[in-house]
Amino acid sequence: MSSLPEPPYYAVIFTSQRTTVDHGYGDMAERMVELAAGQPGYLGVESARGADGLGITVSYWRSPEDIAAWRRHAEHRIARDTGRSDWYAHYTLRVARVERAYAWAREDGPQDPQA
Amino acid sequence: MSSLPEPPYYAVIFTSQRTTVDHGYGDMAERMVELAAGQPGYLGVESARGADGLGITVSYWRSPEDIAAWRRHAEHRIARDTGRSDWYAHYTLRVARVERAYAWAREDGPQDPQA
Repeated sequence: MSSLPEPPYYAVIFTSQRTTVDHGYGDMAERMVELAAGQPGYLGVESARGADGLGITVSYWRSPEDIAAWRRHAEHRIARDTGRSDWYAHYTLRVARVERAYAWAREDGPQDPQA
Repeated sequence: MSSLPEPPYYAVIFTSQRTTVDHGYGDMAERMVELAAGQPGYLGVESARGADGLGITVSYWRSPEDIAAWRRHAEHRIARDTGRSDWYAHYTLRVARVERAYAWAREDGPQDPQA
């Protein structure tokens, strides 16, 4: 994700609490990542979910218009509907304009300074 | 987090990959959340880290000035330094202006429609 262009670009911050209902969730999540990656203006995605079921997915886009087009995608709509009926207890979605970005990476290999 | 004010407000998206070094990481993370919550312009925080060590923390702020002040906080600086020396393999930090927000929550209790 350090390969994103220089800001400005846009982020969709999707914070969700999973239910205990599986019902194809993993396949859907994988499919949405794959599908999003093929959309115009897609720049990248980052995702994490903890053991408590709270997850954050941030997808990055060139423009608000690209985000709106992805929002209207038929298969994405179906996933959204199933999200509401089965997978999520609650979620929040935020659209934000990224104004600054800074990446840092460890230079040397060893992760343990005592090693 | 559905108690945030109406946009616009600001988000700091911090995406990080943990090393295997503990060295007080949990205490620091807890302390930073506590400390941030007392800063001017702080609105809230959401955080998730998966079993693979990739984590996303999004904190929300009233203005870029509030974010800059938090960045300069002495104890936060120390945590940042230790993050680089010990806790993180790499990280990305993005500052974004939240333009739209939408929250959804399940109305009824049962999470399992078959129950």
